[in-house]
Amino acid sequence: MTVRLPEHEDLEAAYTLLRPLVRRTPVMEVAGGDLGVPGRVLLKLELMQHTGSFKARGALHTVLRMPEGTTGAVAASGGNHGAAVAWACGIAGIAADIFVPATSPAEKVRRIEAYGGTAHVVDGYYSAAYDASRRWSEGRDVVAVHAYDAASIVAGAAGVGIEVGDQAPFARRVLVPCGGGGLYSGTALALRERIQVVPVEPERCPSLAAAVEAGGPVDVDVSGVAADSLGAARIGEHAYAVAGALGAAPLLVSDDQILAARRLLWEECRVLAEPGGVTALAAVMSGAADVRDGETVVVVVSGANHPTIPEDVVAPVSR
Amino acid sequence: MTVRLPEHEDLEAAYTLLRPLVRRTPVMEVAGGDLGVPGRVLLKLELMQHTGSFKARGALHTVLRMPEGTTGAVAASGGNHGAAVAWACGIAGIAADIFVPATSPAEKVRRIEAYGGTAHVVDGYYSAAYDASRRWSEGRDVVAVHAYDAASIVAGAAGVGIEVGDQAPFARRVLVPCGGGGLYSGTALALRERIQVVPVEPERCPSLAAAVEAGGPVDVDVSGVAADSLGAARIGEHAYAVAGALGAAPLLVSDDQILAARRLLWEECRVLAEPGGVTALAAVMSGAADVRDGETVVVVVSGANHPTIPEDVVAPVSR
Repeated sequence: MTVRLPEHEDLEAAYTLLRPLVRRTPVMEVAGGDLGVPGRVLLKLELMQHTGSFKARGALHTVLRMPEGTTGAVAASGGNHGAAVAWACGIAGIAADIFVPATSPAEKVRRIEAYGGTAHVVDGYYSAAYDASRRWSEGRDVVAVHAYDAASIVAGAAGVGIEVGDQAPFARRVLVPCGGGGLYSGTALALRERIQVVPVEPERCPSLAAAVEAGGPVDVDVSGVAADSLGAARIGEHAYAVAGALGAAPLLVSDDQILAARRLLWEECRVLAEPGGVTALAAVMSGAADVRDGETVVVVVSGANHPTIPEDVVAPVSR
Repeated sequence: MTVRLPEHEDLEAAYTLLRPLVRRTPVMEVAGGDLGVPGRVLLKLELMQHTGSFKARGALHTVLRMPEGTTGAVAASGGNHGAAVAWACGIAGIAADIFVPATSPAEKVRRIEAYGGTAHVVDGYYSAAYDASRRWSEGRDVVAVHAYDAASIVAGAAGVGIEVGDQAPFARRVLVPCGGGGLYSGTALALRERIQVVPVEPERCPSLAAAVEAGGPVDVDVSGVAADSLGAARIGEHAYAVAGALGAAPLLVSDDQILAARRLLWEECRVLAEPGGVTALAAVMSGAADVRDGETVVVVVSGANHPTIPEDVVAPVSR
């Protein structure tokens, strides 16, 4: 399958369209020593985006680009994408019907409804919700919003890269969490020929690593602490094409490394990210990213939609 | 009592000394509508400072200005100041002895020790810890670090104002939480003649409001949800003098308004501040600050050292 990747002008146009509606999330410099590494780390705090994750950018861009007269959008998601589509439809003034697997936490359903969306809870796992969304859409005047593998999603997510290029022009590398690859491919396209962008996957959600090895996207089993946000069973065609064009290979981090990064980020910086949001930081802390003395790396912290916060992260047991 | 307030050059010198060691905390723009008010709000995210609060600035400045040969610092604090002094002494390579009332949460003691300080837990309340620290210091070559009422503390905290002046030059007002007044007076001195700085107190910790009414600092009863960080029984002479010179009167917010601000800040921005850290935001949301259409206000979010995080803030009960 060949995909048409968005051009530089498409990314800029998307950013201009979105700029009044999304947040320009801040960057904070942290001495590498605070995280146990050399160099310096610039945290791109995308978890402070609307809906608590970068997904707001791609979802809103997609909804705003829908054909005139579209009265509703539909998505299947038990996670950040569902909330982002509900939020985006609220801004556009159209209906959002989000199909959620019954295995998703109640918190996610609550957020979808808080943004004005209609949550359809479907028995079973993600694929059941997806199938139900397809059946429901038949004959209806609605547009399906893919969670990651669409040019409009990639172009929307590219805003993270555009901002990083402006906020951290001297950085040599940008590390980003990678699930289906929307954030990775958008950021990498925005910064191509300027700053290297490195995707970081959980070992237990290795969709890009598996595709690189197989020579194309393949289905993988997903599990682990970050599966709720990075558990795409297959890397997007767009992300695979971008990684191929730029010669990028993903770094992999373990669940323990992800949870350690989440704890340290709270302890050192009072930033409380979800597990999937800190895989890039985990790659820095674990040594997988091999940050050198004097190097500046940007670490994108991509989301903070926790079903629950474990006590050992923010509230140690009393004496 | 007359105090000598730091001059503009003192504030600049403090900032230059501290700059390599403290974090330049980020500012994020939030549409007023996201917080239910007109205008736009710039959040100054000082909770991401070392030790999780602005206290790191004044404590480190004080420790670095101690006479040569000083081998240790002592402080009485059951809260953010204790952790900040322990951290500062670690950087300076001197001992930190922190006297903590037994009523303080274990979490605070843990942080002091994590920064290399010695925590002395004293039966009773703050005054007992303070008295014990005085007795212990007699005949020892140590310097006591006041939590707020010292020129070196005010000059260190002024860095928040210096950064805001640079990060938000077009703002018309800066709202800051006020307890003993170190953050307020430092920020106000740094921005005098440029941007108005407004102190915001909890109704149940009204030390500046009481001083304004009485014509001078007086003891007040303190209680409520923010007392652990803003519960100074008496406003600092420095802060009182600054408020008088600038004609500032504090805004007051209720415990309910503080807790509502804390919840909304998490829900909208995934920023998890302690109650005392969000009094300035509470003044915006409650209407006490009367933000107008088209106005830009800076809101300092000053700390995030939670003993515990209530479930209704970050983790709603499951279905």
